[in-house]
Amino acid sequence: MGLMYNRTMRFEDLNWMDIENYLQTDNRLMLVLGACEQHASLSLLSDVRIPLALADAASQQSGVLVAPPLNFGSSPYFLAYPGTLSLRVSTLLDVVEDLVRSAYGYGFRRILVLNGHGGNDPVRSRLYEVANTLPDLQIAWYAWWVSHSVDEVAHEHGLKPSHANWLENFTFTRVGDVPPGSKPPPHIPGLMNARQARQVYGDGSFGGPYTADPAVMNQVFQAALQDILQMLKFE
Amino acid sequence: MGLMYNRTMRFEDLNWMDIENYLQTDNRLMLVLGACEQHASLSLLSDVRIPLALADAASQQSGVLVAPPLNFGSSPYFLAYPGTLSLRVSTLLDVVEDLVRSAYGYGFRRILVLNGHGGNDPVRSRLYEVANTLPDLQIAWYAWWVSHSVDEVAHEHGLKPSHANWLENFTFTRVGDVPPGSKPPPHIPGLMNARQARQVYGDGSFGGPYTADPAVMNQVFQAALQDILQMLKFE
Amino acid sequence: MGLMYNRTMRFEDLNWMDIENYLQTDNRLMLVLGACEQHASLSLLSDVRIPLALADAASQQSGVLVAPPLNFGSSPYFLAYPGTLSLRVSTLLDVVEDLVRSAYGYGFRRILVLNGHGGNDPVRSRLYEVANTLPDLQIAWYAWWVSHSVDEVAHEHGLKPSHANWLENFTFTRVGDVPPGSKPPPHIPGLMNARQARQVYGDGSFGGPYTADPAVMNQVFQAALQDILQMLKFE
Amino acid sequence: MGLMYNRTMRFEDLNWMDIENYLQTDNRLMLVLGACEQHASLSLLSDVRIPLALADAASQQSGVLVAPPLNFGSSPYFLAYPGTLSLRVSTLLDVVEDLVRSAYGYGFRRILVLNGHGGNDPVRSRLYEVANTLPDLQIAWYAWWVSHSVDEVAHEHGLKPSHANWLENFTFTRVGDVPPGSKPPPHIPGLMNARQARQVYGDGSFGGPYTADPAVMNQVFQAALQDILQMLKFE
Amino acid sequence: MGLMYNRTMRFEDLNWMDIENYLQTDNRLMLVLGACEQHASLSLLSDVRIPLALADAASQQSGVLVAPPLNFGSSPYFLAYPGTLSLRVSTLLDVVEDLVRSAYGYGFRRILVLNGHGGNDPVRSRLYEVANTLPDLQIAWYAWWVSHSVDEVAHEHGLKPSHANWLENFTFTRVGDVPPGSKPPPHIPGLMNARQARQVYGDGSFGGPYTADPAVMNQVFQAALQDILQMLKFE
Amino acid sequence: MGLMYNRTMRFEDLNWMDIENYLQTDNRLMLVLGACEQHASLSLLSDVRIPLALADAASQQSGVLVAPPLNFGSSPYFLAYPGTLSLRVSTLLDVVEDLVRSAYGYGFRRILVLNGHGGNDPVRSRLYEVANTLPDLQIAWYAWWVSHSVDEVAHEHGLKPSHANWLENFTFTRVGDVPPGSKPPPHIPGLMNARQARQVYGDGSFGGPYTADPAVMNQVFQAALQDILQMLKFE
Repeated sequence: MGLMYNRTMRFEDLNWMDIENYLQTDNRLMLVLGACEQHASLSLLSDVRIPLALADAASQQSGVLVAPPLNFGSSPYFLAYPGTLSLRVSTLLDVVEDLVRSAYGYGFRRILVLNGHGGNDPVRSRLYEVANTLPDLQIAWYAWWVSHSVDEVAHEHGLKPSHANWLENFTFTRVGDVPPGSKPPPHIPGLMNARQARQVYGDGSFGGPYTADPAVMNQVFQAALQDILQMLKFE
Repeated sequence: MGLMYNRTMRFEDLNWMDIENYLQTDNRLMLVLGACEQHASLSLLSDVRIPLALADAASQQSGVLVAPPLNFGSSPYFLAYPGTLSLRVSTLLDVVEDLVRSAYGYGFRRILVLNGHGGNDPVRSRLYEVANTLPDLQIAWYAWWVSHSVDEVAHEHGLKPSHANWLENFTFTRVGDVPPGSKPPPHIPGLMNARQARQVYGDGSFGGPYTADPAVMNQVFQAALQDILQMLKFE
Repeated sequence: MGLMYNRTMRFEDLNWMDIENYLQTDNRLMLVLGACEQHASLSLLSDVRIPLALADAASQQSGVLVAPPLNFGSSPYFLAYPGTLSLRVSTLLDVVEDLVRSAYGYGFRRILVLNGHGGNDPVRSRLYEVANTLPDLQIAWYAWWVSHSVDEVAHEHGLKPSHANWLENFTFTRVGDVPPGSKPPPHIPGLMNARQARQVYGDGSFGGPYTADPAVMNQVFQAALQDILQMLKFE
Repeated sequence: MGLMYNRTMRFEDLNWMDIENYLQTDNRLMLVLGACEQHASLSLLSDVRIPLALADAASQQSGVLVAPPLNFGSSPYFLAYPGTLSLRVSTLLDVVEDLVRSAYGYGFRRILVLNGHGGNDPVRSRLYEVANTLPDLQIAWYAWWVSHSVDEVAHEHGLKPSHANWLENFTFTRVGDVPPGSKPPPHIPGLMNARQARQVYGDGSFGGPYTADPAVMNQVFQAALQDILQMLKFE
Repeated sequence: MGLMYNRTMRFEDLNWMDIENYLQTDNRLMLVLGACEQHASLSLLSDVRIPLALADAASQQSGVLVAPPLNFGSSPYFLAYPGTLSLRVSTLLDVVEDLVRSAYGYGFRRILVLNGHGGNDPVRSRLYEVANTLPDLQIAWYAWWVSHSVDEVAHEHGLKPSHANWLENFTFTRVGDVPPGSKPPPHIPGLMNARQARQVYGDGSFGGPYTADPAVMNQVFQAALQDILQMLKFE
Repeated sequence: MGLMYNRTMRFEDLNWMDIENYLQTDNRLMLVLGACEQHASLSLLSDVRIPLALADAASQQSGVLVAPPLNFGSSPYFLAYPGTLSLRVSTLLDVVEDLVRSAYGYGFRRILVLNGHGGNDPVRSRLYEVANTLPDLQIAWYAWWVSHSVDEVAHEHGLKPSHANWLENFTFTRVGDVPPGSKPPPHIPGLMNARQARQVYGDGSFGGPYTADPAVMNQVFQAALQDILQMLKFE
């Protein structure tokens, strides 16, 4: 068999015979959800790049396959920021259902969803519904930025995680200069529409330091990676 | 005008002329979302009764109108417990959208959603989408059991909030005997289907003490009520 | 078993173990559909209160369970009357399908839908579709105000049943003063939109006497109740 | 202008320039809804042929245009009878909405829906919703077999109208031999699924005489035609 | 049995017992899809009349049943031409799915879709999805105007097939005078909306000769008919 | 302005301020659609990689922005090949509508869809519908493998384009060994379901040579690139 560990197992680098071979001995899959939305000065695809980087790293250590990422999520509140491409929540739920049913059809039975975007949370509701109809399917859900592990790292360094602040500022999400210093978190008057959100959030960050020490970022990444490796055991 | 404070302002006790009168001077509305689902030995409608009790209390103090509750929510994971009546998440989102559009049509402009059930969280995504299409609409969302205020009360008494444990055991949610003591929280192996959920959760509580002191329960209720009264200012 | 006759068997007063007990010996359920819509000077929830009162009475005599009412129906034509909260017809059909499928999932097999609102009639079409997919499910539909029995009572007293006239004026639907006398039925020029409907219907009644003798109202209620008790035999 | 009265004005016999000419002086349209479903020994398309015959006759006398018929309706209960082609009710509603919006787009403002099938009744709910969004649109709905006029004719001759009995047995719906005599109406135990419906209804008629005197049938047709001509005045 | 070859086997001329008889010995069905849309000076229903004429002819030679045509298709780009009645593509797909599922339910297993309108092509995607869920169903799709056979006839006579030009100008699609000569094909600047399409296409033809020799038209018809007869063998 | 030509302008390498800057002087966007499906021995993401490579090349020469690719398309017929992740066609249409509406919301007015997968063709129908509702939006659609230019190249070299044969075998779609020689095209018996498709297509190629000369592949790529550059003028 041509597939080996220590290599990132992405669908895009494989053909269907490779997947068929894989399914002879394993039935696990990582599915990356993200968003294409404003992240202040960071990449519009930050919410894809982070869970995909984690998936790649987890794949190298576990040999588990990584499906192509869904490059769009539900971001209705950011639609006044150019570059945000948002799916209606109903569309998003249908997409994920279709992907899970496709993968289940030829044998995947343990699927770990690596979600990179808070707006995608409603997907979980649909996954419960899908799980009620597909025998022997195990699904797990991981949202790195709200994990206990990452929270501990943040807490240890006195940093508060928030959208488009230090937390998402990795070397691989930076696409230009990042402002120095810290931003005071704005006051949020309820559930805002897109225009209000842009007025309130300004550059798009939800506040706090824009940058953290590279060592902290590495610690965050490793904490999330360990979580994922643990979850891939599906215990 | 025939409407007075200190009276619960529920739609069901009013006619359309009353609402028209109200809209002359106010445009606020409380919308109660809940669920009909297993709550261990507590009422199947606990998730409606709690936010509705809060809405009634807030209405008495503020004079703000209370729409009829939606008696069903999204509870796919509890469908193996008899008595659970669950809406598909897509249905639920449509329902809430329809209610908000109806109320907006004749003049409500500030709507506070009082949600009693975690599974209804995806509604927020749809509300953002709706808010993008309805000028001058303000929506706020309150989920009492995850509020900072209630959390503080729980913390103060060393109690951990969880589904169908002490947290939801009010005089008005009890419908029979409640077990004594405390239940060890079960291990949750990912996103379970309905059958697995029943096996894992047994009587349905997510663990912890089944009962708290009445004074604590009152403190919880008052904390949430104050939050709601504050949110009704829509600042 | 803790459940006894002569008591209203509402879901909200029970927990899931009670439902499971019930299903050991019975598989019947009453499902109440209504509307939140203008009823002239009567309660906005008249269409819920009437079938729910009937369900409660029938439950006391038969011991059959009553699911929580759906507080909203399809009322697009009344959306210019403040207080009307209308579901799109597609939403309404999805809701009822979800409720029926939920109840079927753990064992209900004979479901009597008690409908309080004419605009909900399309639900029947979806119920036929659902019935085609769920073996051994029996569904019956009862709309009290168009029943032969109620019609006979009305005819006996020379009264014509219509929306928000005497027919719906029960002690439990009155929420304030009701106009004296009778209203001439307006001319209906086809299928009107909401604005036209308000112009044409004025106070909202479709015409005729606003009030009937309490003895007549009791006769109406008893006639419908007997129908329901008969239908609960599912013969 | 090339269009003349005394000619049936069907879309299929016209091109788009003809419609554009028509819209210079008129904005009325007849829309025929029906069904493809069992009608005992009568044509599977009886529910299309009858309203279409009425539309043609009304068109000859009024010059009002007739859109192509929708050859399918909602008939879930007859799906065990070969030849029934049923749309889900949600599909049907979408179809009619699309047709009305299309016609409204280039100028039709008064649309008379000629419905030939009871199962299509839910369409009215959607039409109310559509009417709320299209200014100046007038819609009227006519179901010939439940009209007061046809009812009077039936009553006059001591005949009871029912599915696939004498009422629908016109020269243009007969496609073979019709049984002699009369059929006792079956007992209907609630809302039946397709298999039960076939068992209960046998040959498909709902009972009563299979045939009426040609003079009666003509009287029925003329009564409905006069209704339609009156409704085309949109008063 | 009353059914004979050399007769057009249309549903509308049959009753359900006829279909049941047919299914004893055959399980093939022809399903005609078309459109109600501008065809320059030709009938608004040209896209129905052509495949239906082919279906009738094929039925006479093969004895295969013809379902009632769907008189509407997806024609969003022609909605500025009066007389076009277009289904949203999502509606169209639902309609065809419902028809196929209905027919499959009581025994049809080989369905030949005779499509008369290019805008209906997306239906094929849905048919693949449906085919994945219905065992032993064979579906074939025939679009006469893009068939190899018709193309050869056109090529042989140096004629280019296009919307509403000679290709669709049969005796049975003409409803008035057809312009003489030929029209220069317009320049198409991408995917146009309905208003632009009307400006660009003018009378509605996509260009080329308006008329071809009757012998050519007959050759075209026969070529398509032979294709259909061949496809009805489902080899 | 920080954006320069000769650089690939992908959303993922930019932040929202970059997009806002771009929209000051340009309103064009390239949107890449593809599929994740079996391509015989080639990458499962061949249908994404090819149009994305073209988009990148076109972006370098024109400075036009490239949205993140949609990594999934409609491939129901390949669902028996492991690795195929297919969206229902209804889901796919919703996704693309959402992306177009998002981009239109903040100023994109000329969108070139670069489609890499035949199964995505139905998207065009939805785009027509969307275009009818968004003033001043210009949409163009390019499917490289059916373009006249690519066809000419193929014809010049006596090669026939087909799924997963030489046509899609670029250096950047190969993920392992490609078989030598040529495959006889299989016989296609109508519209097959997924299981039949796998039986019929075997390794997944639709037949013909597996490989073409690199010079031919370059010629194909350049031909498509020139088409795209021309279309980006939106004339």
